[in-house]
Amino acid sequence: MFESAELGHRIDRKTFEKEVAKLRAELLDVQYDLLQKRDFPVVILVSGVDGSGKSETINLLYSWMDPRHISTLAFSSPTDEERERPFMWRYWRALPPKGKVGIFAGSWYSQPIADRISKKMKRAEMEEVLDEINRFEEMLVNEGALVLKFWFHLSKDAQKVRLKAMEKDPRTAWRVTKASWARLKTYDDLQVVAGHVLRVTNTAHAPWIIIEGTDDNYRSLTVGHVVRDAITRRLAQTGKTSVPVAPPIVAAIDKRTVLSELDLSRALEKKAYEKELAKWQGKLSQLMRDPRFQQNHSLILAFEGSDAAGKGGTIRRVVEAMDARQYQIVPVAAPTDEERAQPYLWRFWRHVPRRGRVTIFDRTWYGRVLVERIEGFCDEDDWLRAYAEINDFEHALVQAGAIVIKFWLQVSKEEQLKRFKEREKTEFKRFKITEEDWRNREKWDAYAQAVCDMVERTSTGRSPWTLVEANDKNHARVKVLRTICERLERVLEGK
Amino acid sequence: MFESAELGHRIDRKTFEKEVAKLRAELLDVQYDLLQKRDFPVVILVSGVDGSGKSETINLLYSWMDPRHISTLAFSSPTDEERERPFMWRYWRALPPKGKVGIFAGSWYSQPIADRISKKMKRAEMEEVLDEINRFEEMLVNEGALVLKFWFHLSKDAQKVRLKAMEKDPRTAWRVTKASWARLKTYDDLQVVAGHVLRVTNTAHAPWIIIEGTDDNYRSLTVGHVVRDAITRRLAQTGKTSVPVAPPIVAAIDKRTVLSELDLSRALEKKAYEKELAKWQGKLSQLMRDPRFQQNHSLILAFEGSDAAGKGGTIRRVVEAMDARQYQIVPVAAPTDEERAQPYLWRFWRHVPRRGRVTIFDRTWYGRVLVERIEGFCDEDDWLRAYAEINDFEHALVQAGAIVIKFWLQVSKEEQLKRFKEREKTEFKRFKITEEDWRNREKWDAYAQAVCDMVERTSTGRSPWTLVEANDKNHARVKVLRTICERLERVLEGK
Repeated sequence: MFESAELGHRIDRKTFEKEVAKLRAELLDVQYDLLQKRDFPVVILVSGVDGSGKSETINLLYSWMDPRHISTLAFSSPTDEERERPFMWRYWRALPPKGKVGIFAGSWYSQPIADRISKKMKRAEMEEVLDEINRFEEMLVNEGALVLKFWFHLSKDAQKVRLKAMEKDPRTAWRVTKASWARLKTYDDLQVVAGHVLRVTNTAHAPWIIIEGTDDNYRSLTVGHVVRDAITRRLAQTGKTSVPVAPPIVAAIDKRTVLSELDLSRALEKKAYEKELAKWQGKLSQLMRDPRFQQNHSLILAFEGSDAAGKGGTIRRVVEAMDARQYQIVPVAAPTDEERAQPYLWRFWRHVPRRGRVTIFDRTWYGRVLVERIEGFCDEDDWLRAYAEINDFEHALVQAGAIVIKFWLQVSKEEQLKRFKEREKTEFKRFKITEEDWRNREKWDAYAQAVCDMVERTSTGRSPWTLVEANDKNHARVKVLRTICERLERVLEGK
Repeated sequence: MFESAELGHRIDRKTFEKEVAKLRAELLDVQYDLLQKRDFPVVILVSGVDGSGKSETINLLYSWMDPRHISTLAFSSPTDEERERPFMWRYWRALPPKGKVGIFAGSWYSQPIADRISKKMKRAEMEEVLDEINRFEEMLVNEGALVLKFWFHLSKDAQKVRLKAMEKDPRTAWRVTKASWARLKTYDDLQVVAGHVLRVTNTAHAPWIIIEGTDDNYRSLTVGHVVRDAITRRLAQTGKTSVPVAPPIVAAIDKRTVLSELDLSRALEKKAYEKELAKWQGKLSQLMRDPRFQQNHSLILAFEGSDAAGKGGTIRRVVEAMDARQYQIVPVAAPTDEERAQPYLWRFWRHVPRRGRVTIFDRTWYGRVLVERIEGFCDEDDWLRAYAEINDFEHALVQAGAIVIKFWLQVSKEEQLKRFKEREKTEFKRFKITEEDWRNREKWDAYAQAVCDMVERTSTGRSPWTLVEANDKNHARVKVLRTICERLERVLEGK
């Protein structure tokens, strides 16, 4: 894999200077085109062996392009805010918006590679992480990002020579630490691990670009050319490209679905309701203060449902059992412009709670496969691949200790009509019923199909859907509370 | 001060229930009006003695209003990301946007009060902090926020009774800790300190509302009424209210200004430039790696200047001496919608660097007193009070160890014209010259006046302006680099 990067590539100074003058103008040009179009972000990963010119190249890109529209993110040890969230959270928060270039000095590859060399990570764990990375990058590319992954290579001898040279030069000596020399000792291990990592993550949509780091001129010029050409090609590209997706889902021929099988007549009379409500709220309140929850977990509640199914009222009963300082409710409305400049999951990632905290989403990332699908806000390809992306998202949350509980609240078409009419009458509910609600109602069957597809594809072992019969509010509220408590208990007991 | 909160206020259950039904509807109503108008945020601080019902009241507000549009922020010990920035950073990042309600459970008052009681903070320091708080709250109010500060009071006996009652009730026992009883012992100290704090911060624009916490019904109902009435009044208010400001500044009658006195003929020929550039870049590179900088300071560079004065090129020469992983360049363009929903300084606070890091602003918060003043994007009141707000902002930065260096790059009107024309010719600079630049040029004199006023009012001892003669790019770049180095050195040497 690294053979072509040990050929002793070399560019003489004269050729270099001549080329650079032209290259700079072209790089600036494509950068301004990128900025003006604001169509996609450029994500550049810079990885490789020590002394191979990673930081020199990044600094050079800054001097060749307009540094005001590039951001570089170095990831050393995570902050405590990062440690209490999924591994990928820190990278999500650092993603460049459309039109900008984000350089990752050290990336999602660094930690796994280091951990594997030091044997902190088992081979099987490594495979799992690499798989996650591939899926993450695929998502980025499908969301439009241009992903350029550079690996700077040096032969063992070349690395030794470079480290010595850097140590001698007072301007670079500080960068050669004990750790650098230690890493020289593990050079062979790095080659093995990196070779494997690069092979497995050398995907069609985000391939590695391996660059010989020995000669500064060669390395810099090559990177400059690659960046220029890749952005140019991507700007010229008309139409979207995304990974192939399987054709849409077909409805069950006998019309029996998870929704049709719900017994919407389920109800709870007032007295029983009050007793049950008090019981489960008390239970939940206790669980929220359980040190096992506080120290190891966070809670994410996802509420979806038909319009007027009673999400708001249910959420209210849930939070009554919590301390306001512990939870945050995120009502999902139209995305802000900062959110629109990012992959669609970004606006949910930003609300991922820390340990001991709760985020309640009133409507969720499932909007992608519900309203966006039905209203045509995204392409068929987009919502079809969203099922897997969403599963990955929730998987990452659960891996990091989050407890993810998802509810679909279902009312019958008649019950909805009744509630719409009631709401129009009640003054202080006036903002709850809009033209849009009436329009959505006309698409009842399309929504039902979308819900069934969603449940089928995203009800996973560790974050299953709970379908809630919501014609009777009492029943729905108690079922939600009970589900949360039982799930929390199971997780805390380690079952 | 607390006498009126020891009268034994009490509301019987029946009255309470009757009132609440009405109150809830009204609260929801004003909340929806607030949300629809998106004119201002509501900032509610909940402070007071232990056991006085702070969290009960917050939870009650959630159940009375629509919890999806309220956020509560509890501030315990700061995270490491917060610790490395000014004291107020964590509160800035938690401010609710326009249209929403943000409840601060524990606020900017908590730490100072606790530190004063434990004698960690001297009286003089306390006064300084209180002054800062007053100015911060004044800024919030001037920016349109409705600020409601509640202080829940209990007599010493009432507190003891409440703590005992809470301890007995299994649902609340967990909230009574050793610390609660310890605080009972310092009850008298708290009264003294809080009495002083409340008096000094009892401003006309953000007065304290002291509430007797003994009776749940009385306390809850009073808070509900206050919130309802305050939002209602504020919604009804037409036109802006802000603190009085002194009339605009008058130009010097002899036309001599800090700008006219600049010797724009200053220049540096190529050879000397290259030598100086290398010298100061080398120096800067060293200073950036100085452990005294890395551990105790951050660097904020603010660049302002006439159009085409060469800010971009200068910034490029500065960052050449730094590692891309250490700095971030923030080009200030039109605010995003998330930024527009906040006080104007918010979008700069969000980029305040951590320790050892650098943020370079290409155009800055001074836009308020330059372009916004001249184009009439804000009222005269707004830009007139901005001078003090900006000084406070920079003071907070410097207090937290940031080194703030501000540059104004000045070219002559003739030189600007020459550069505009050049830029129109050079292909890869094509995005640098816009219609707007030509329009701005017509307002040359107005800008000159604004710059002089700005320098006069915001060049402070700890963050002075450096005016840079920029007709000659070589001279300008070296002067900027030298200024940065000398300032850094002075600070690191403790001079």
